[in-house]
Amino acid sequence: MVTTDGKIAISEDSAFDLAGYLAEQKIRVEQALDQLLPITDPPTIYKAMRYSLLAGGKRLRPTLCLATCTLLGGTQEMAMPTACAMEVIHTMSLIHDDLPAMDNDDYRRGKLTNHKVFGEDMAILAGDALLAYAFELMASQTEGVPPERVLKAIAHLAHASGAGGLVGGQVVDLESEGKADITVDTLTFIHTHKTGALLEACVICGALIAGAGEGDLQRLSRYAKNIGLAFQIVDDILDITSTQEELGKTAGKDLAAQKVTYPSLWGIEESRTQAQRLIDEAIAALANYDAKADPLRALARFFVERKN
Amino acid sequence: MVTTDGKIAISEDSAFDLAGYLAEQKIRVEQALDQLLPITDPPTIYKAMRYSLLAGGKRLRPTLCLATCTLLGGTQEMAMPTACAMEVIHTMSLIHDDLPAMDNDDYRRGKLTNHKVFGEDMAILAGDALLAYAFELMASQTEGVPPERVLKAIAHLAHASGAGGLVGGQVVDLESEGKADITVDTLTFIHTHKTGALLEACVICGALIAGAGEGDLQRLSRYAKNIGLAFQIVDDILDITSTQEELGKTAGKDLAAQKVTYPSLWGIEESRTQAQRLIDEAIAALANYDAKADPLRALARFFVERKN
Repeated sequence: MVTTDGKIAISEDSAFDLAGYLAEQKIRVEQALDQLLPITDPPTIYKAMRYSLLAGGKRLRPTLCLATCTLLGGTQEMAMPTACAMEVIHTMSLIHDDLPAMDNDDYRRGKLTNHKVFGEDMAILAGDALLAYAFELMASQTEGVPPERVLKAIAHLAHASGAGGLVGGQVVDLESEGKADITVDTLTFIHTHKTGALLEACVICGALIAGAGEGDLQRLSRYAKNIGLAFQIVDDILDITSTQEELGKTAGKDLAAQKVTYPSLWGIEESRTQAQRLIDEAIAALANYDAKADPLRALARFFVERKN
Repeated sequence: MVTTDGKIAISEDSAFDLAGYLAEQKIRVEQALDQLLPITDPPTIYKAMRYSLLAGGKRLRPTLCLATCTLLGGTQEMAMPTACAMEVIHTMSLIHDDLPAMDNDDYRRGKLTNHKVFGEDMAILAGDALLAYAFELMASQTEGVPPERVLKAIAHLAHASGAGGLVGGQVVDLESEGKADITVDTLTFIHTHKTGALLEACVICGALIAGAGEGDLQRLSRYAKNIGLAFQIVDDILDITSTQEELGKTAGKDLAAQKVTYPSLWGIEESRTQAQRLIDEAIAALANYDAKADPLRALARFFVERKN
């Protein structure tokens, strides 16, 4: 569980200290992000990029990437530029999603959205610059990894970030707005692309950097797809059950926008059951791995237990 | 010279048939772009991407990339995904530049701009998807090239596309609007970043794919920087001297926006002289190369002779 001040308190008995692990990884990732993106010329754009990139958050995406790389025998150092790229892409997608022409949102992570501070033009450009930067980071900062692995990871992340992933999901989401007859299939398309593709990329790219074989990739893909969908179901539930203060962003948005969500199709209790089922399947996909996979198991559980 | 119907007639005596070369490369590039970006699901976004990507144009950027790769002993096939990536990035920058929050333009290449046809939200997303797609193309479609070369090219293009290049130039351009006291230094910063960085990337990435050494990279960078600046000076001149029909986009924009340009600082005649001087320097940078560099020489001359 995450309390509103961001402190993490894990409710269940577990030999693995997820709270400590998440806190440690968050510090590492934020130090890397801060160092990798200094303010240079022209300062406005770097300030706009850093405003959203360093606005906090749990850094779950880079943590998933680092945890997968180390599970397969890689080091955190090998995967750090790739892990940071995941957060960079996530941030760019939030900046563009919040734009007036898109979701038109004023708050994100408890702060004004990028375009409210820097203007719409700078927010568009900050998103563009971050998107390009993710690939620059991976291609120029990765050390100690055979280049063919980095290329595979870039190809996977680029696909997940574009029309075949994140952007494609956002398109169908926008096209579905205000329609009452959205099916579970369409909703699942939206979320496996808009949220799921990048979460899966975190896991798969971490695995590729470590030199994963086909068997590992299949197991980890199953793990990632399940936690991705569970994550979105929980997001939909939290949008209904949480306050703005708890979420750090506008609450009740889906209802106000008359958006079809899992809770609106299934009800809250059934949505919770489905999310738990997906998490159980995700953990079952890790059965081949020993205690080294405990961070991924604990992260999966955390995905349904989180409060924001 | 390019006539208004897009047919190319080269005015000077030259053993090298630039008109034929440009026509041939344009066909190859457009075939590759068409094949590499089929319409899949969700169709709206692919249609929006293809609308701007296949809207014509001289395809000078991919041609520069292919010409540089073959100059250094590489093949067109090795460089084609990278060459296409250059056009993809160029297209995304045009889509986002034309947005209401940016230059707010209704026409581009004689057609309605992307957001006028698909809406502002889809135009933002089409640009995002194209940006990601450029790197997917390079990382997943390049064949017969050692992966470390592809990685270097990706790093260079990503840098040129982001805050250190294209986006950085656009930021200073937006910040300079309506200011009467813009210096030549600021104007040069804008153009070496907004236009020059991507033109240089075309040449440098073509060279990297071919396995260029440090000497080649230095010479070709000098060539590229000079043609890049000349290209922009000519663009500024054409904005004043051409009609909308000739340009295929709104003419007289700079004057209407009270933008400082090279002709507004230097006058048209001096601007022409400076552009010619830069082209002479670009060609001088190719002195080490034999007739294999004729396409690059002819392209440089064409940059100041073009009429749109």
